[in-house]
Amino acid sequence: MQHLSVKHLLGIKDLTREDINLILDTAENFKEVINRPIKKVPSLRDITIANIFFENSTRTRLSFELAEKRLSADVINFSSSSSSVKKGETLLDTVNNILAMKVDMIVMRHSSVGSPHYLSKHIKAKIVNAGDGTHEHPTQALLDAFTIKEKFGHVEGKKVCIFGDILHSRVALSNIFALQKLGAEVMVCGPITLLPKYIKDLNVKVELDLKKALEWCDVANVLRIQLERQTIKYFPSLREYSLYYGINKSLLDSLNKEIMIMHPGPINRGVELSSDVADSHHSVILNQVENGVAVRMAVLYLLAGATE
Amino acid sequence: MQHLSVKHLLGIKDLTREDINLILDTAENFKEVINRPIKKVPSLRDITIANIFFENSTRTRLSFELAEKRLSADVINFSSSSSSVKKGETLLDTVNNILAMKVDMIVMRHSSVGSPHYLSKHIKAKIVNAGDGTHEHPTQALLDAFTIKEKFGHVEGKKVCIFGDILHSRVALSNIFALQKLGAEVMVCGPITLLPKYIKDLNVKVELDLKKALEWCDVANVLRIQLERQTIKYFPSLREYSLYYGINKSLLDSLNKEIMIMHPGPINRGVELSSDVADSHHSVILNQVENGVAVRMAVLYLLAGATE
Amino acid sequence: MQHLSVKHLLGIKDLTREDINLILDTAENFKEVINRPIKKVPSLRDITIANIFFENSTRTRLSFELAEKRLSADVINFSSSSSSVKKGETLLDTVNNILAMKVDMIVMRHSSVGSPHYLSKHIKAKIVNAGDGTHEHPTQALLDAFTIKEKFGHVEGKKVCIFGDILHSRVALSNIFALQKLGAEVMVCGPITLLPKYIKDLNVKVELDLKKALEWCDVANVLRIQLERQTIKYFPSLREYSLYYGINKSLLDSLNKEIMIMHPGPINRGVELSSDVADSHHSVILNQVENGVAVRMAVLYLLAGATE
Repeated sequence: MQHLSVKHLLGIKDLTREDINLILDTAENFKEVINRPIKKVPSLRDITIANIFFENSTRTRLSFELAEKRLSADVINFSSSSSSVKKGETLLDTVNNILAMKVDMIVMRHSSVGSPHYLSKHIKAKIVNAGDGTHEHPTQALLDAFTIKEKFGHVEGKKVCIFGDILHSRVALSNIFALQKLGAEVMVCGPITLLPKYIKDLNVKVELDLKKALEWCDVANVLRIQLERQTIKYFPSLREYSLYYGINKSLLDSLNKEIMIMHPGPINRGVELSSDVADSHHSVILNQVENGVAVRMAVLYLLAGATE
Repeated sequence: MQHLSVKHLLGIKDLTREDINLILDTAENFKEVINRPIKKVPSLRDITIANIFFENSTRTRLSFELAEKRLSADVINFSSSSSSVKKGETLLDTVNNILAMKVDMIVMRHSSVGSPHYLSKHIKAKIVNAGDGTHEHPTQALLDAFTIKEKFGHVEGKKVCIFGDILHSRVALSNIFALQKLGAEVMVCGPITLLPKYIKDLNVKVELDLKKALEWCDVANVLRIQLERQTIKYFPSLREYSLYYGINKSLLDSLNKEIMIMHPGPINRGVELSSDVADSHHSVILNQVENGVAVRMAVLYLLAGATE
Repeated sequence: MQHLSVKHLLGIKDLTREDINLILDTAENFKEVINRPIKKVPSLRDITIANIFFENSTRTRLSFELAEKRLSADVINFSSSSSSVKKGETLLDTVNNILAMKVDMIVMRHSSVGSPHYLSKHIKAKIVNAGDGTHEHPTQALLDAFTIKEKFGHVEGKKVCIFGDILHSRVALSNIFALQKLGAEVMVCGPITLLPKYIKDLNVKVELDLKKALEWCDVANVLRIQLERQTIKYFPSLREYSLYYGINKSLLDSLNKEIMIMHPGPINRGVELSSDVADSHHSVILNQVENGVAVRMAVLYLLAGATE
């Protein structure tokens, strides 16, 4: 068995190109498994995994939970709404308590940037970062890379543009790291108010004009506008955002080429994507969801076999 | 194996008498199974079922979950409180996302009338309606029919009266359809303010007087007064409702016959039923709960074997 | 197989010394099991257990759930936030409904003192009390006794002092009963406002001075200050509580002896315990958590084998 160079999956930043390829190749095998009538393998039968979600997340938690069950792991779920966190316990104490019950791996989402990295220095169990604040969301980037590779055969040399709210997105940063390591060209496109200041250090192209960006790219990864976070001011209003940065069918048709449309979900139909695009043959959005289970199986499987 | 005429269980309205009898006969077998020391069968071992509850429901969700586990299915739970629904995602997108993770069947409760019917036109997975607004709650009607048949040997020719808040009840409508298809005579009894206008189209007897209705029927199916829905105005006050429509022991004793008392739960003791009735030998309320697991096993088992 | 003298675990008060020793010995075996690579045993394979939590509790619920899964039981979870309790159903009706679905044992937490005792008179299933109001929390006391025995080889003759908010703690009362039955000497220490009036009937030493209590004891079981319960007035302020009753390293160093530090969690670092104490070699806090799973496995296993 080949091994990852890391013990935890904290972020794409820590992975080598070989790590990423190993995960994608392993996920390919697991995708075959979950498309068979018998979707389960006994690989993690004696492993207990705790899903610790300090922030709500339907699709990510379900995807991890299904990945764990398909691998025959024992699964326990912990969400902050029913937790000691409210009683003033520290994060490390909460996690150490769960680990003392003989839990082997934790999958963790937390609103604070760097929280899984902090934990990894103090605990023995393996950690999968399922999103830390606006920082990284590595399994999303891996499933996105898997979906691009599945379509084109390879990621190298592809032109991928990430659209929308780059500033508040953990998906954007992880995607940029993964795509660059795999040799893709990366652009970001969105209103200047939603681009982080550090974007110039990331070696990506920046484009403010939606149409020019679409003309450039092979793949459009459209981020969601986070309507529920009222602290975010969308440039200068949601309606104008949609007007200048919403992608619709007639815009796609005006280009003389095919573009693959990705979206991490949940979609705001009529805001960042129109329905005719989301449901068109351009869209691989549901393939991304399907691939997510296979990619998470691969990550859990490889980490479980990782030596210290 | 015999087959249902339907691919989904959306409502009793769509079922033939043969469908209902097939479900009840199958449930009889499963009731034997869950009364054995070993309560599990491997029937749905490679099936993944998602319980999607957009409204809270303790007993229905637990009953389905136990039915699924007794059938050895893989189970995932999804409730709206932890969901993307709050983030503005459409119902169809939410369900399509769950299905993209290779889920075979969904059990769904939703506050909107017709939501499972709408979904059934757009998705491939099999759907069991676990209650859609004030419309249908088919598995409740099936377990009620099962309980009547278990007691009397048959449903045909029995006189069944449904008491209480017919207007806001999904239990009432599904029961009326099931009982009529099985050849029972059906009456509804309650204050005029809680009877729907369309009741006259349903071919049921209507009786406003509690005592006369009790004198008529063999079986009293007493619906719950939904105290938690403050928008419902109970005629003209809860206290008067209880005075005119509450069923107590001395009232039952004043009749010269035995009546079987059913209730879908949860009971408001002292409102629609007095405690001495709820706990008497007349009551089959806990039998209904027990039969619910067997009936749900039968429904899931038969749908899983249904061809497209 | 040896048997407990009780059918339910409602409180330590009902147990004999032999019962407690049987549980601790059985837990020792299970602790070996959960430290093996294969942590599961098939002991309760055909048993269904419902965890019914009317109050939130992370660590206790997870600990029971893991214990049940390690024993291969079927597990269903029920919490009051998603329950019929809000719809006006009685406790007995709620539990009877769950039991009608063929549930064999219930693990139950409730805010009302005596609620599991009340239920035990009306239902057939076996009950484990996972905490009833400020009354008892028997599995916590058993895991505490297990941890003391594990360290010292025996509990008899050890001097154990319980520190803090005795008045509002179910941990204190269960610990006092368990320790006394096993032959330990017991003291309580805290501000007079947090000692219950009935303490003089419990045959324990009472000490108001922190340092004198520490000088006396071999084991300090430090209760948590329940910051989240704003109805509790801490003597006379939280800051002064911490000043007079907080245990820190320099205080421990000033004693000429070793003390074992226990805490039921979650810890308020800097309030009842300083971090240098919580993380020191004196502390067995995470051992308590680990032992909790083994002790709960023992309780469930023994009750499942108990005859009526």
